Amino acid sequence: MTDRRNKINRDRINLPIGLFDSGMGGLTVLKAINACLPAEDVIYLGDTARLPYGTKGKETIVRYTLQAVGKLVDMGVKMLVIACNTATSAALPVLRERFAPLPVLGVVEPGAMAAARASRNGVIVVIATEATISSGVYQEAITRIRPDARVIGRACTLFVPLAEEGWMKGPVVEGAAKRYLKDIFNPVVTAPRPDTLLLGCTHFPLLLPALRHVTGNSASIVDSAATTAYCAHDELVPLGMARAGRTGTCRFLTTDNRDRFARTGSLFLGRPLKTTDVELVDL
Amino acid sequence: MTDRRNKINRDRINLPIGLFDSGMGGLTVLKAINACLPAEDVIYLGDTARLPYGTKGKETIVRYTLQAVGKLVDMGVKMLVIACNTATSAALPVLRERFAPLPVLGVVEPGAMAAARASRNGVIVVIATEATISSGVYQEAITRIRPDARVIGRACTLFVPLAEEGWMKGPVVEGAAKRYLKDIFNPVVTAPRPDTLLLGCTHFPLLLPALRHVTGNSASIVDSAATTAYCAHDELVPLGMARAGRTGTCRFLTTDNRDRFARTGSLFLGRPLKTTDVELVDL
Repeated sequence: MTDRRNKINRDRINLPIGLFDSGMGGLTVLKAINACLPAEDVIYLGDTARLPYGTKGKETIVRYTLQAVGKLVDMGVKMLVIACNTATSAALPVLRERFAPLPVLGVVEPGAMAAARASRNGVIVVIATEATISSGVYQEAITRIRPDARVIGRACTLFVPLAEEGWMKGPVVEGAAKRYLKDIFNPVVTAPRPDTLLLGCTHFPLLLPALRHVTGNSASIVDSAATTAYCAHDELVPLGMARAGRTGTCRFLTTDNRDRFARTGSLFLGRPLKTTDVELVDL
Repeated sequence: MTDRRNKINRDRINLPIGLFDSGMGGLTVLKAINACLPAEDVIYLGDTARLPYGTKGKETIVRYTLQAVGKLVDMGVKMLVIACNTATSAALPVLRERFAPLPVLGVVEPGAMAAARASRNGVIVVIATEATISSGVYQEAITRIRPDARVIGRACTLFVPLAEEGWMKGPVVEGAAKRYLKDIFNPVVTAPRPDTLLLGCTHFPLLLPALRHVTGNSASIVDSAATTAYCAHDELVPLGMARAGRTGTCRFLTTDNRDRFARTGSLFLGRPLKTTDVELVDL
């Protein structure tokens, strides 16, 4: 059995990692994977035609995610990483069942782990899309790791279009951060002040300076990008499926508007992307 | 021929008007139609699962619009009103061809007409989504009606999610309006100041106070909702297809998340909508 598994893994080692996101925010996870697993090829698929997922109902999110991820599986991948918090929250169990034995990694567990480790007083704020917050998955995942934690979830819907518009600092984004979070970080009643802010959406790391404005300097701000990349590493290595001694390649697939993907994607990836680097696919 | 046409029109008079929008912004047009044609039944379809259309590429917008409008046509309607500026800009000629002889009305011509009439000095600013502005349809439509006009188009992407979040006043939306429009309404170089602002997106009437902050009190702010309703009236009456002497009904169809449709829809419609008023449809 072990021999057969090793044979399968040897056959699959050269396949790329499939990375799915509803849009371009997941490129922050790609950047972390490139840093942590530089030898791996990655295919990134952003379902930009149907973004945002964060304001949609659960059934729609599951249906769209299955279609998009199915496309990556058809292309041949050795592992799936669901970089979208909303898709992870709604669809991870369904994806694991549908595509078994393919390893499927989400961003929620890694993010919860990072927050649980970072907090000293156990008061943790999670900010994410409406769908992610109302699903309660972060709240559950953190208290599973750290039962004493007090987790406050807050939907920050506008942060997604703000980041996509490239408005990462200035009065508009600072005003939005204040409107969403001021009552939590500057409570009127005597309540323990949160010491950790978990960014439960891959778009939010772009808004760090504005968020820091509201949290103050003493709070930890953590996101799931780096931890997700470590988890991918920790899953591939014991399976004998991690590559080494080469520089991996990246393919970028989008379901709409290659120009916009290249333009906004560059912000998230932290390096320039050209329209000709991006392929259009139909789901 | 006229007899046959009259017979067809008599058969069709009792059918509803089909009103399509990518989301809930078109409810401002529904409100205007209810006021102008109170006896008509209306079926409103908002493709909320796939909104926003305004950041998508033209081909995707046309494909989605054809699917959604096809649904209304299958249900039986006597006229189609495309309340979404983005869908009108991208798909109106295709819709007219596909569904002829059904009258198909968009919001661009009525909006252009309203702006051309309102402006004294002929300097008109159109604000809309990225897709609408880059299509250039408003710029063309206005100069067709008024060849001396100088039309300045500006994409204001964030106004859509701001209106949907219900953030209609306060520092965030005022800051956004300033960032998008200040250079136009307070030009550094000596340029004629625009005297008219055309709201080329059905979401934008909700942001009126914040926009007024940037334009000043002397500029006219016009939108296409009322003019579109008048155009629908002017098209139905000569065809003998306008109803009278009754109070029409409204059906609300959405492709996703009935709760959110009812909650946000109430803002646009200006009267409360309950979740049970909204039907879920699949496209």
